[in-house]
Amino acid sequence: MGETFVIVGGDAAGMSAASKAKREHPELDVVVFEKGDWVSYAACGMPYYVKGDVEELDDLVSLTPEEFVQERDVDLRTQHEVVAVDTDAKTVTASADDERVEQPYDHLLIATGASAIRPPFDGMGLDGVFTIHDMDEADAIDRFLDRHDPETAAVVGGGYVGVEMAEALSARGLSVSLFEMLPHVLQPFGDVVGAEVEAHLREQGVDLRLETAVEGFVGGGESEGSAEGDRIEAVALGDEQVPADVAIVGVGVEPNVELAADAGIDLGPTGAVATDEYGRTSAPDVYAAGDCAEATNVVTGEPDHVPLALTANRAGRAIGQTVAGEPTEVGPTAGTAIVKAFELGAARTGIVDESAAREAGFDPVSVTITDESRAGYYPGSEELTVHLVADRQSERVLGASVVGREGAKRIDTVATALGAELTVGELQNLDLAYAPPFSPVWDPVLTAAKVLGGRLGDAD
Amino acid sequence: MGETFVIVGGDAAGMSAASKAKREHPELDVVVFEKGDWVSYAACGMPYYVKGDVEELDDLVSLTPEEFVQERDVDLRTQHEVVAVDTDAKTVTASADDERVEQPYDHLLIATGASAIRPPFDGMGLDGVFTIHDMDEADAIDRFLDRHDPETAAVVGGGYVGVEMAEALSARGLSVSLFEMLPHVLQPFGDVVGAEVEAHLREQGVDLRLETAVEGFVGGGESEGSAEGDRIEAVALGDEQVPADVAIVGVGVEPNVELAADAGIDLGPTGAVATDEYGRTSAPDVYAAGDCAEATNVVTGEPDHVPLALTANRAGRAIGQTVAGEPTEVGPTAGTAIVKAFELGAARTGIVDESAAREAGFDPVSVTITDESRAGYYPGSEELTVHLVADRQSERVLGASVVGREGAKRIDTVATALGAELTVGELQNLDLAYAPPFSPVWDPVLTAAKVLGGRLGDAD
Repeated sequence: MGETFVIVGGDAAGMSAASKAKREHPELDVVVFEKGDWVSYAACGMPYYVKGDVEELDDLVSLTPEEFVQERDVDLRTQHEVVAVDTDAKTVTASADDERVEQPYDHLLIATGASAIRPPFDGMGLDGVFTIHDMDEADAIDRFLDRHDPETAAVVGGGYVGVEMAEALSARGLSVSLFEMLPHVLQPFGDVVGAEVEAHLREQGVDLRLETAVEGFVGGGESEGSAEGDRIEAVALGDEQVPADVAIVGVGVEPNVELAADAGIDLGPTGAVATDEYGRTSAPDVYAAGDCAEATNVVTGEPDHVPLALTANRAGRAIGQTVAGEPTEVGPTAGTAIVKAFELGAARTGIVDESAAREAGFDPVSVTITDESRAGYYPGSEELTVHLVADRQSERVLGASVVGREGAKRIDTVATALGAELTVGELQNLDLAYAPPFSPVWDPVLTAAKVLGGRLGDAD
Repeated sequence: MGETFVIVGGDAAGMSAASKAKREHPELDVVVFEKGDWVSYAACGMPYYVKGDVEELDDLVSLTPEEFVQERDVDLRTQHEVVAVDTDAKTVTASADDERVEQPYDHLLIATGASAIRPPFDGMGLDGVFTIHDMDEADAIDRFLDRHDPETAAVVGGGYVGVEMAEALSARGLSVSLFEMLPHVLQPFGDVVGAEVEAHLREQGVDLRLETAVEGFVGGGESEGSAEGDRIEAVALGDEQVPADVAIVGVGVEPNVELAADAGIDLGPTGAVATDEYGRTSAPDVYAAGDCAEATNVVTGEPDHVPLALTANRAGRAIGQTVAGEPTEVGPTAGTAIVKAFELGAARTGIVDESAAREAGFDPVSVTITDESRAGYYPGSEELTVHLVADRQSERVLGASVVGREGAKRIDTVATALGAELTVGELQNLDLAYAPPFSPVWDPVLTAAKVLGGRLGDAD
């Protein structure tokens, strides 16, 4: 009898683990339970489906269920929700069509993902009020826009999903209001990026309302009385109502940890499932990966919850390899993220703001510089702003954010520097690529490092 | 009496040193001798001036002589050629308008740059045959094109200057033939990049002739007999003549080391001026930087000659800081380079081919992968090819090349990895930025590292 690797959840982490385990160890039985119909899809592409840049929802699927079954020999069971894990008996119980299946495992991966937070707003149930975290929601939004041809949209939450949806809805001709409770949009990207993105959103016609608490949504009292119920007509702000024919609520996600918690598996300080460097949980032979699990922050060395695609894919792949017999670390996260906001690109990695750095025990010093994306005289050069943070004592680079019309991917240089624990002096001495169509002689990241290096030197 | 810092050569290395030394130590007397008129110009921008993308030659000048004198208080003497250095007496002798000036120094920087190699071709002196290494040459080419409106051009040499000039001349409507003696263009970028660029050059209508030795240029016997002499009419290949109304010879550069060699200063194994980690030469208080000097290769630890702008700027700046009282290392080079070839970008860093790696004492293993520059479903995604080289034993990353219509700047990730001496496993675990408009989930550099990591694993 071969061993059985059971995976709960058929998205990035789960299917990466399934594929890798099967490839490395073809005799392994790999069983994946997915409660929905979609597997292995690019959730990050959904705003571009709504926008119209991606034609078919299926384009976001990298492998279909059939391909997993036929080409990769994975025993994939969609429409199966795992409702219990018994870590002593080493079994999971799945529910499908009112019947229950019990499945023993030798190795178990919990990859249950995260869910969009549904705030307790009045009117969350109105027709036209959506969260966007899975493919069915993206599909529903698109169909709603097609059917009702709304003119005004409210986006609640100025995180990356909110910003991307503001762009998508504007591109479809809607007049968009964006509501954010905090002083800046894209809070994890820091104030420097936030302020630049805000100015740009306003330039693009977005009615941006910062430090604004939404109370709920107001429906049409005189609606058609259709089966779908009352339709949204406005966002309620307390003393004001802002017209909205459709609303997207994107106020963040929370890890789906009930299954693990019910099984007695430890959660970590972030509320997600605690894992070690191999993705192992507190239960023997049980792993967790992806949006439901913690990862180790490369700067702080502490558990972090970074529900992003690469972290999920990488951890899934590493666990698949470990289960197949070659122990492989899941790798740390730097919290690297990049987002398109209309014509701007914004990115961040590591620790971006000084207060967060102080909380992590560092003595931060930072600079913000603006330079060109190409040689200044070369056509198409755009301004790029780089914010760079380091520790005064060790001079170690802690993080950065960048924003501009081109070149946001330069964050990767700093992400690499974090992975290697480089100092500001070492960052400054990197031999980065220069030619006029691609960069100034000193890449903006190097310029930021030079200026920050000077500041550290002055402080000596 | 203050100290005097004398600099020979007013381009990237020299003027960076002058500016930095003055900024850090305003009491220092800084004297720069420049034999020509131009200082501190972007030589790398010249092909784009010829192409027409940059309107004025002056646009390539970052600071004028007047600005150096008035704003930075640098004693800049253009039209002064330094003809001798006496390292015992600590003086230099400069020649200007037939008179000679003797200038004592406390610190001396030799930043004499490099010159275009002028091969011993027949007809090098014909009107319409140019090298392109300084601003006067760029100006002369532009004026020649304007005046004579040539139809056919020959570019001799398929290095980055040759490729850039092929693009520039094509953009001006000329029919371009490009001659390269080696089997591939862009030899330092390796065969993978070479082959892709060659296919693209041919697509763009360039008559590309590899492994072809040019014997010389043939002039018009029946020319106007003007003061400028015979005009070029063809390139002679031995058994064939290829029509050419203008020719650009870009077969490389050689360091200008006569001044240093005559002064008894040691040259290194590459033929350029030998320097230590602070840019110091074998003579006391004499530094060398830029295209005339060696730098330490970050991968091999050996002296290297990399006549590129960032290396020159950085070394000049570091030496300026050292002379001002704060000893600063010039930093290593990775030989990082990037070039635009019509619609393609190509880049390289470190050791790109296996034979070079073996020569440097490594046991190389490499992979070539092609992936997308953005999420595959996202509009505008382009193919990007990454070639990655590592050492089998240590698993250390040795170098890479990339080529594609967008994303060549991703070479910076590998350049950073080289600076940090990362292994393939560490490179693979970097948390790089992903969102559909910017990258696939696994950045192509990560994908190359994954595949190479697998290959290293198999070899265990």
